[in-house]
Amino acid sequence: MKTPNIKGNDEKKVRFEPDNIDILADIRANLLEVATDAGIQIIASCGGAGTCGTCKVLVKSGRVESKESNTLTGEEFQQGYRLACQSRILTDLTVYIPVGSRLERAGLTREDRLPQRVDVESSTANPPLRKFFLKLPPPTLDDNASDLTRLLRGLKQEHKLDNVAVDFDVVKKLPLVLREKNWEVTATALTVDVADCDDIRLINIEPGDTREQLYSLAFDIGTTTVSGRLLDLNKKNVVCQKTDFNHQMSYGQDVISRIAYSQKPGGLDKLQQTVVQTVNGLIGELLAESHVTAEDIGHLMVAGNTIMIHLLFGIDPKYLRLSPYVPTASFIPPVKAVELGIKAAGHVCIHSLPLVASYIGADIVSGVLASGMHRRAELTLYVDIGTNGQIVLGSSEWMVTTACSAGPAFEGGGISHGMVATNGAIEDFEIDLKTLEPVITTIGNEKPKGICGSGLIAIVASLFVNGVIGQNGKFNAGIVSPRVRRGSDGMEYVIVQAAETQTGRDIVITEIDIENLMRAKAAMYAGFQTLARSVGVSFQQLDRVIVAGNFGNYIDVNKAITIGLLPDLPRERFIFIGNGSLQGVRLASFSTDAMRDARKVAGMMTNFELSENTDFMNNYVAALFLPHTNSSEFPSVTKTEKRKQQKNTCLPQMKGGTN
Amino acid sequence: MKTPNIKGNDEKKVRFEPDNIDILADIRANLLEVATDAGIQIIASCGGAGTCGTCKVLVKSGRVESKESNTLTGEEFQQGYRLACQSRILTDLTVYIPVGSRLERAGLTREDRLPQRVDVESSTANPPLRKFFLKLPPPTLDDNASDLTRLLRGLKQEHKLDNVAVDFDVVKKLPLVLREKNWEVTATALTVDVADCDDIRLINIEPGDTREQLYSLAFDIGTTTVSGRLLDLNKKNVVCQKTDFNHQMSYGQDVISRIAYSQKPGGLDKLQQTVVQTVNGLIGELLAESHVTAEDIGHLMVAGNTIMIHLLFGIDPKYLRLSPYVPTASFIPPVKAVELGIKAAGHVCIHSLPLVASYIGADIVSGVLASGMHRRAELTLYVDIGTNGQIVLGSSEWMVTTACSAGPAFEGGGISHGMVATNGAIEDFEIDLKTLEPVITTIGNEKPKGICGSGLIAIVASLFVNGVIGQNGKFNAGIVSPRVRRGSDGMEYVIVQAAETQTGRDIVITEIDIENLMRAKAAMYAGFQTLARSVGVSFQQLDRVIVAGNFGNYIDVNKAITIGLLPDLPRERFIFIGNGSLQGVRLASFSTDAMRDARKVAGMMTNFELSENTDFMNNYVAALFLPHTNSSEFPSVTKTEKRKQQKNTCLPQMKGGTN
Repeated sequence: MKTPNIKGNDEKKVRFEPDNIDILADIRANLLEVATDAGIQIIASCGGAGTCGTCKVLVKSGRVESKESNTLTGEEFQQGYRLACQSRILTDLTVYIPVGSRLERAGLTREDRLPQRVDVESSTANPPLRKFFLKLPPPTLDDNASDLTRLLRGLKQEHKLDNVAVDFDVVKKLPLVLREKNWEVTATALTVDVADCDDIRLINIEPGDTREQLYSLAFDIGTTTVSGRLLDLNKKNVVCQKTDFNHQMSYGQDVISRIAYSQKPGGLDKLQQTVVQTVNGLIGELLAESHVTAEDIGHLMVAGNTIMIHLLFGIDPKYLRLSPYVPTASFIPPVKAVELGIKAAGHVCIHSLPLVASYIGADIVSGVLASGMHRRAELTLYVDIGTNGQIVLGSSEWMVTTACSAGPAFEGGGISHGMVATNGAIEDFEIDLKTLEPVITTIGNEKPKGICGSGLIAIVASLFVNGVIGQNGKFNAGIVSPRVRRGSDGMEYVIVQAAETQTGRDIVITEIDIENLMRAKAAMYAGFQTLARSVGVSFQQLDRVIVAGNFGNYIDVNKAITIGLLPDLPRERFIFIGNGSLQGVRLASFSTDAMRDARKVAGMMTNFELSENTDFMNNYVAALFLPHTNSSEFPSVTKTEKRKQQKNTCLPQMKGGTN
Repeated sequence: MKTPNIKGNDEKKVRFEPDNIDILADIRANLLEVATDAGIQIIASCGGAGTCGTCKVLVKSGRVESKESNTLTGEEFQQGYRLACQSRILTDLTVYIPVGSRLERAGLTREDRLPQRVDVESSTANPPLRKFFLKLPPPTLDDNASDLTRLLRGLKQEHKLDNVAVDFDVVKKLPLVLREKNWEVTATALTVDVADCDDIRLINIEPGDTREQLYSLAFDIGTTTVSGRLLDLNKKNVVCQKTDFNHQMSYGQDVISRIAYSQKPGGLDKLQQTVVQTVNGLIGELLAESHVTAEDIGHLMVAGNTIMIHLLFGIDPKYLRLSPYVPTASFIPPVKAVELGIKAAGHVCIHSLPLVASYIGADIVSGVLASGMHRRAELTLYVDIGTNGQIVLGSSEWMVTTACSAGPAFEGGGISHGMVATNGAIEDFEIDLKTLEPVITTIGNEKPKGICGSGLIAIVASLFVNGVIGQNGKFNAGIVSPRVRRGSDGMEYVIVQAAETQTGRDIVITEIDIENLMRAKAAMYAGFQTLARSVGVSFQQLDRVIVAGNFGNYIDVNKAITIGLLPDLPRERFIFIGNGSLQGVRLASFSTDAMRDARKVAGMMTNFELSENTDFMNNYVAALFLPHTNSSEFPSVTKTEKRKQQKNTCLPQMKGGTN
């Protein structure tokens, strides 16, 4: 980024409001990219294709060249709204970023709602990163073996460490480091699990005794968010944790649009740099908060879905989305973090947990590892609900996996007032039985800005249970209420009036929104069904259902069952583990055995492709009802529904008295 | 290097004659460094300390700021001669480089004089670099394993290759390469001998069948010269060979002055870059001559003395010259060649053969490997004669080593008209028994420029045998001959008259020169003696004496024994193997087993330090005669001498008739 003081001939000054950030940009530069360069995170769900309208900005002064778009109304265009992704800078500009187009981190790191069941107790053996302190005898004429020989001899004699490979960089600094504190040194060794045998490698050498400083980083690279933890390997604890949006959000909200972007010229490099920028930002924050220095961090372990891992490592994801959906590698060789542009010390390697298939990623392997599912005989369904739903069924004996494309509704995508789960998002919804008014809960208790996935489920469940919408997701005919009205996209329900919102517009849910959610939940449920039936398992046989994912952590199990997202099982069988991926990475950071388990888990997973599976299509169509066309699948919902209809508690009031 | 067209304010134009090379240099830049930048190799024996006078140049126009030096006469200073290393550029200059100050490559690559005995037959098993061709089944929905899994599966099924590590760069290009020629690929694997087990690593993947292109590079990094061979690993032969001066010659002629230079600010980097520049130049020549492309070269194996290996890898050699003389590493981990700045494909690793001690380097280990000494029961003395003499004594059962500082006389250093062995160097010398005139042989049959090491030995041997000089190396009193005269440095013998030389000056040998050679040969001989006595071995017990080194290749064994350099043994016990180091590197390039042997050889060598050894000092002093104070050590020389004295063939004629 350049400062505005040295403006060249072909450069224009762009002021972004309300942040009041000024940046110089080349004439005809893309406004979305310039905003991103200025550090302003604008949502661009479609990856800059001009089709989603999420990157809408207001050009208050100056001129841009901009294609027309269906996603802007004529009135908006008149007012000066433009899609940032479709606009090229012609003159100096003042651009206002509306609240709805911004990604704001506030609220992104919510407290985990539920205690997490993670098998941490077994995870501290055989740590991958170790430090060894040595007091070496100085060389003499009678014993003038090389510095390296002396070091390796010491490691063998004092610490029983044998057959150690040595990084060249260690050799280069050896003479000075050994002599700096009179032959007292600390060697850092990294153990990598390679095909059933441990590969031990000296990655660093420091003067004196530095054993107390032994940290590593564990990251989950999500499509929407990136979370990082700084781990103290001595104390076996998490020092601190930070989460940010994956800055790639400006290049598409879901993995498919990211893959599409990666195929543009320079696209792969841009996406790689962007996620690395996100990671670097988080590393900076973790170091600042903990007062740990970068030199004391010796390792970086990551997980993420297959596409995110490919992009982080700069591997072309092209074939992930083309049949037969082949990843480049299910086990990516360790590489120096600095080679990827990550701001870490030169000796830090980055390791990814293994992945299984194009849509069964390292995040799932990591989550399964964290859940302990691979060590229990119990029959478990592990689900990660999201745009790309990922499902694992099995036990310590066997595992089958599948993935289903649920669409972005769970992450607020494709929903009129949808948003990702940050401050101002409506995350829960009830109808107050006394006032009969909606009661909403927002993240951060802010004035509402939009609806996130858990809010959407709560709204649809509540509208359904209270008879506002029917099994088909349509507003019940004859409902008359000031909150139910016909809008530009058909029938809609007003959740919050404009005066009460941050956006100054009514927050509504439309029939199209409800339909989108129903498609999403139908895809997930059909995925569960298809996978279970493929191995002859019924839901009733499930001992546990583990719901992973940041999103899963905040949904209400009853409401999820009400809309038919989760199978109707006794509630105690459900376990919510939050970001399982991040927890698995933590385990693998503490234990090479855990990393080996992860490799075994990845190896035992048999993946089913649903994309051309007719059973899945049938299950999907059958699930496009609330909760399901086959109501016997959801006995508890059917019972509640009947009871509510008998008691008729809410429905009349909602109708405004005419029914 | 900049072109003279765009001369800046603080830049001066320097023209170097006779090459007529123009270069722009910063004002006050060091003239020696500027010449080096311009590609002109000037000898600077002392490494720029201003003490040796070898970098003398004639400033024909313009001004330099230059310190006075003892190495220039007042007359020379008046004429405009300056030491390049001591001169800073003040104005535009025209500088003439006299023939004596230049390093010229012509003649550097002489044909090997003797057939080389190398155990090549056993060296082709288990090659470190291999290519594997695969026709992989394309992925299907039923078999959509990752690209890497597919590749590794193919290698295991088709080629029994298991437990293979994979370079990250291979993974990155995998998707495109696999699909480029319809799943037909060639994988390149490098086997590294690590602590008794082979580490196999996939380093490259290419579309189609490239098995026919399988080359590697073998280099010997000498203090004076660097030699490289391009090897065809399929045909198991040497495609071509090139030799150049080690461009570090401009920073000191011997290892001690190089170490000294490395301790200056930026010195280590400069030396590292300079030797890499030398290597890159040779690689370019090897590729040009062979029409092999850089991409088809998969490996680079090097040997060299301990200091050269440290400098090539950019490892600080400081402690090599400080008691107790500790190398940084005796086994340097493989590193990507490009990381050192070497112009090779990204997948090429550089490996050094192991080394033993500060002055027993990888060149000795390599030479011993090439000689097969480690596989024979015969008692063998392996000697590499040079500035740093290196000696190995032993058999397949045991080996002891030592090094002795002989000084630079064998390489023409410290000799009034000494020069390295290139075109114009007097390499042999006899006195014609008919004309009684000296008969000289020069390299390249050019007009003589100076005397190289083998010439020096021939001259001293001949002068001694013919009674011109005595056992003490002094000219025999009473000798009167137009060729024997008193010069500025005392008595001298005129070998060639000025009119017959390239330099326009008489080429002479002085008593001081003879003394320097005697010191050098005494150090070597005392080294042999001390080492042999330390293990209770007499020279007579030696089954073989292997003389290695480019220098050793050109000395006449009789003349070397005559001056007392080599022990007086039956001539058939001597074997000359030339550049043993380069041959060992070739073996290790063809065979991982040879590399393992090299590691074993290095491991079995017990090194003795002579620097503080009193036995060595006594032996050295005793050897400061021709051939030795103890004439019974050299019975055949004594016999010849007596016979010559009886026959009185040459001596009277040499005296000009007065005796």
